[in-house]
Amino acid sequence: MIDYRLLQALAAVIKNGSFEKAAKHLHITQSAVSRRINRLESLLGEPVIVRCQPPRATKTGTKLLNHLQQVQQLEVSIGVGFQPDDPDNNLPLTITLASNADSLATWLPEALAFPGFDSEKKLSFDISIVDQSVGLNKMKSGEVMACICDSSKPVNGGLSRYLGDLQYQVVASPNFIHRHQLNGIKGLHELPCLVFDQDDQLQHRFLQKYCGHAPKYIHLCPSSEGFKQACIAGLGYGLLPTLQIDDAISAGALVDLRPDYTLDTSLYWHYWQTESEQLKSLREHALAISRRVLPQSAT
Amino acid sequence: MIDYRLLQALAAVIKNGSFEKAAKHLHITQSAVSRRINRLESLLGEPVIVRCQPPRATKTGTKLLNHLQQVQQLEVSIGVGFQPDDPDNNLPLTITLASNADSLATWLPEALAFPGFDSEKKLSFDISIVDQSVGLNKMKSGEVMACICDSSKPVNGGLSRYLGDLQYQVVASPNFIHRHQLNGIKGLHELPCLVFDQDDQLQHRFLQKYCGHAPKYIHLCPSSEGFKQACIAGLGYGLLPTLQIDDAISAGALVDLRPDYTLDTSLYWHYWQTESEQLKSLREHALAISRRVLPQSAT
Repeated sequence: MIDYRLLQALAAVIKNGSFEKAAKHLHITQSAVSRRINRLESLLGEPVIVRCQPPRATKTGTKLLNHLQQVQQLEVSIGVGFQPDDPDNNLPLTITLASNADSLATWLPEALAFPGFDSEKKLSFDISIVDQSVGLNKMKSGEVMACICDSSKPVNGGLSRYLGDLQYQVVASPNFIHRHQLNGIKGLHELPCLVFDQDDQLQHRFLQKYCGHAPKYIHLCPSSEGFKQACIAGLGYGLLPTLQIDDAISAGALVDLRPDYTLDTSLYWHYWQTESEQLKSLREHALAISRRVLPQSAT
Repeated sequence: MIDYRLLQALAAVIKNGSFEKAAKHLHITQSAVSRRINRLESLLGEPVIVRCQPPRATKTGTKLLNHLQQVQQLEVSIGVGFQPDDPDNNLPLTITLASNADSLATWLPEALAFPGFDSEKKLSFDISIVDQSVGLNKMKSGEVMACICDSSKPVNGGLSRYLGDLQYQVVASPNFIHRHQLNGIKGLHELPCLVFDQDDQLQHRFLQKYCGHAPKYIHLCPSSEGFKQACIAGLGYGLLPTLQIDDAISAGALVDLRPDYTLDTSLYWHYWQTESEQLKSLREHALAISRRVLPQSAT
């Protein structure tokens, strides 16, 4: 049987980004953390951590983290508590979840408040934002318990469920349209384009398809609300979720550049087969909310 | 004189996170990138990159990046174009800016649309979000040209200007208040608390001061809009900028738990002494906007 304190030390180093912070998190000394990692490596006969800044898990280390994640969920689902000597004893279970930014800015928060999530104060969310196209990497590496992304294909040991489509509209502010004498989307690729971050290809895909070019220059604005406000301020045009801009369009602060058109992205909920009861409740609630709020197209 | 193609190769490797992506960005082969880095290192007699995944700059590498950032700004301000053999030729100048999330979600977008920013299509923003308490590290490391953070102390070679105070209110949804039979902020530390990310200490500072305890359990929600929506959904309470929640409070979706109280954070604009004309215009416009929108308290 694996000594899970060793895996917890590994997880703490990777999660906190250093041996020093891991020690603080585990309430043990830094040399105790090192000893646990060394013990793990000598048991396995190979390294689990690449010693760079921040430290990262080797392939074997990643497998172990993935395994630890699943074991922790199993423990929760069979009602077994943490070890008495565990510093995390009596702390709530942390649900790690990777989400695309637009879900977190629109339909997801309501879904997280699933019935019973709060009743025993035993749950705590640790949400990370990753582009919908790369979120699955966090599942593969065992960093998260669930993930919302645009791929339907489950990872090894995982399953996926269709949530619904997030619909996007191409919008700009009235002053932007006036300043550039914009007529629909003609020549849009010549104008400044708002993009969430380096991973965000939504605008590129749209322009390539309808204007035949990639955007000539872009502003990177990695905040859902900031992206919307930058659009309203006339910094550029961009694709924004219909759910997020209904009010701004009604108020005339944003104009739909291609009426009756939406770019639809199908979203999926990814989870582990060894899902705990709590995560199952969360997933079922998330699906109920998403099916009410997001248009359903996939079979 | 330094061969700046070598520094650009260094910058591309660090920015893109790999030699392969740097090569793609510079439109040269991966081995050409390696050769430039090796040449730089043999000229200096020491490494500029730590070869881990992703690669990071050594202390000397960081100094060089910092220097490159300043030289690029100088070049722009004296109207000198890029080298003809530069693949970035004719691409707009990228203004790299580190901001706290709450500025980007509230007053900053309007400030970025400074007069003339768009006239020659020569500017492109690359905004990164970092906690207001750690943003200055990005200035120090030469990653950004300007930074908005809560420290007034400029970095070496830099200057700072006071922008104004971002005011926060402690809020929760009516159903959260009802469910926990909450009366003001009494016992607040026992209830689920929303926190932006690991660096965000705003809630901790507030609770320590007024409840005498750190929050017992927290949800990490690294999105300004998601944070607000999670508050409205009743997932937890949190501190939100007055600028961001005026509407939700008026609509009764959020309730101020401590009326007549605000937690005020002074914000500063940091910039390099070798500031280009464009960055000066941007800074002056940002200051004009912030002085109109943010309450002014510091001298």
